[in-house]
Amino acid sequence: MKPSLEDYRRIVGDEVIEEIYRKAEALRGRHILHINSTYQGGGVAEMLNSLIPLMNSAGIKVGWRILHGTPDFFTITKKFHHALQGDKINLTKIKKRIYEETNEIFSIYTHILHDAVIIHDPQPLPLIKFYEKKQPWIWRCHVELSNPDPEVLDFLMEYISGYDLVILSSEKYRIKDLPVEQRVVYPAIDPLSPKNKEIPESVVLKYLKKFGIRTDKPLITQVARFDKWKDPLGVIDVFKIVKKEVDCRLVLCGSQATDDPESHRIFHKVMLKARDLIKNEDVILITTENHILVNSLQRSSAVIIQKSIREGFGLAVTEALWKGKPVVGSNVGGIPIQIKDGVNGFLVEPHDTEKFAEKIIKILQDPELAKKMGERGREMVREKFLITRLILDHLDILSDICKS
Amino acid sequence: MKPSLEDYRRIVGDEVIEEIYRKAEALRGRHILHINSTYQGGGVAEMLNSLIPLMNSAGIKVGWRILHGTPDFFTITKKFHHALQGDKINLTKIKKRIYEETNEIFSIYTHILHDAVIIHDPQPLPLIKFYEKKQPWIWRCHVELSNPDPEVLDFLMEYISGYDLVILSSEKYRIKDLPVEQRVVYPAIDPLSPKNKEIPESVVLKYLKKFGIRTDKPLITQVARFDKWKDPLGVIDVFKIVKKEVDCRLVLCGSQATDDPESHRIFHKVMLKARDLIKNEDVILITTENHILVNSLQRSSAVIIQKSIREGFGLAVTEALWKGKPVVGSNVGGIPIQIKDGVNGFLVEPHDTEKFAEKIIKILQDPELAKKMGERGREMVREKFLITRLILDHLDILSDICKS
Repeated sequence: MKPSLEDYRRIVGDEVIEEIYRKAEALRGRHILHINSTYQGGGVAEMLNSLIPLMNSAGIKVGWRILHGTPDFFTITKKFHHALQGDKINLTKIKKRIYEETNEIFSIYTHILHDAVIIHDPQPLPLIKFYEKKQPWIWRCHVELSNPDPEVLDFLMEYISGYDLVILSSEKYRIKDLPVEQRVVYPAIDPLSPKNKEIPESVVLKYLKKFGIRTDKPLITQVARFDKWKDPLGVIDVFKIVKKEVDCRLVLCGSQATDDPESHRIFHKVMLKARDLIKNEDVILITTENHILVNSLQRSSAVIIQKSIREGFGLAVTEALWKGKPVVGSNVGGIPIQIKDGVNGFLVEPHDTEKFAEKIIKILQDPELAKKMGERGREMVREKFLITRLILDHLDILSDICKS
Repeated sequence: MKPSLEDYRRIVGDEVIEEIYRKAEALRGRHILHINSTYQGGGVAEMLNSLIPLMNSAGIKVGWRILHGTPDFFTITKKFHHALQGDKINLTKIKKRIYEETNEIFSIYTHILHDAVIIHDPQPLPLIKFYEKKQPWIWRCHVELSNPDPEVLDFLMEYISGYDLVILSSEKYRIKDLPVEQRVVYPAIDPLSPKNKEIPESVVLKYLKKFGIRTDKPLITQVARFDKWKDPLGVIDVFKIVKKEVDCRLVLCGSQATDDPESHRIFHKVMLKARDLIKNEDVILITTENHILVNSLQRSSAVIIQKSIREGFGLAVTEALWKGKPVVGSNVGGIPIQIKDGVNGFLVEPHDTEKFAEKIIKILQDPELAKKMGERGREMVREKFLITRLILDHLDILSDICKS
């Protein structure tokens, strides 16, 4: 069964748990609704899978619905997503129409009688237009928003401005000229989920063996989709430099969206670029999605790299820090919120290949430093980025917004 | 936008539409909930996509939720599904546990405050166990149930017996020794859905061309998954005999479940068996899922074949009959409910290859007969198997069960 709130006492302490119960008590009987667009795959779905049952375990009725979309709809909203992160888009009438219609049809059989509604990301954003609004509506945007395409943002503003509150993942993402209150809430990880929970060494070794990863040399790992924003090709460049100084292995582990031809192209390029290294097993590419494998990989690595060009928040960084691993990450998006340079890892400008290599070598050559950084990282996550903190933030927001 | 009830007047007449409004009026204000496990793919999802918005259009609040399941869960429930149709299964504890737990977790964030609940098929069947039951619950089983595996049925009886009403697709599927009322409701098709609506000849030709289907010879079509129960290999045998008498082409159009290795094996066997015929384009295999393509294919065919070994109801037969096409189908499952032998097609025992060929040849050689049969088929569907009739059945059931 899913963990209950009680199971978190031993991780975050009694005080946090008592605070959750106390704040939840004030909201007892309220009925809250979350709507997003996927049950599985990606950080948002993972977070909701933990957050929503725990909110119920705290005594509040929190419901969860998934927008029903066709493949066409998701192709379009993926383009919107990329455009919000700065990509170009051809914003045609038909795209707008399919986007709206999917939401309109969903509204026909989704009768909202709740005390508050929380809409996640752009996919179900237009829903608000199809209801007679009887309760506060919150838009929770998990997307990186530092440099959005103005045309798409402008189009979405029509919907966003109908909400009572917008929640973002970083101060840098605040939307200009929006006549709606905006708050920043950092995402969080669940320390008891399959991806993060403690697992016995025997399980770790079993998984590594199953995926052909030997542990005779130190491991460097990047957990990220094979997609241009995660720069897997750049990681290979970094690894080639590191490898000259320290004999080690690199694991790139990430899903490869079946419906995304670009991701296939990038995966293929990585294969070509690292061909010889792959042949002698110094580079291992994994596209299987398996939470226990990611958990095992992070626990077995000497250092974690996150060489993203863009990054909404970077929960893969959070997961690695929680496992007591130093992370060398790009100074973009939500990564500097988590990595304090020289404290629990190193921050490097995203295109500075040499510097990435230098910092990784430094950690590989200094196990004492690695250990100390890892401990600090874990404590920072315990304090700031666990699901219990996210529950408290949600309780505060609901208590503010349901009373006003 | 989705069609509204008004759009059906010109197809079924004013009387039917007025009857729907009248019966719906008596249920005004009621809030009904449907739960199934997929939004897309398969006959059940298609039916709900039409039924539920139209029930709302008739003035009743009808909600629709999709059970959130992991791939593991769906692998297990697919085995249950096959076992209910007579396959063997290894009913382990872990299968039962994942089946129950998935439903239990869904119940945590799905708060049911409705006046009636309709659960579709085995996937969300256990939900009833996790609620304090405050309203009538209906189990709507779309699965072929004439010869279920006794162990699985016995296991599911624990849940089924908690319901107030069970709805089946054929008299033959009644469950023995079940202390719950059972009714038979035939499925239905939506004459205005993309798969069934009238489309211009130019669109038909465009789609056929796009998929490489020439129309210089008569077409025989089977629309069905590449799966052993649909016997695509048997269809090739039939075609080889037909081809000796009448020069024609065969199209097999059906999805090939990506997660089903058996379906890949069968597709491969069909390819080998029909290799030469495929090479000279007399046999065309299509695995693309496209409703307008299916619509175009059915409209362009001289005769439709449905050589299923098992068939819950056989909505592909209904779709073909609606397009005025004679169907030669197996005398199994729901097919004899639709095909009257010699009237709107022919019924053949599923393994009688010779007879299948004989009947297809007969239709191909007698266009007058084909036309007459097609007209009768269309009228039968209009009267018995359109979505408006299904709406009326639902209204009757709700009115009975909500008052009792």
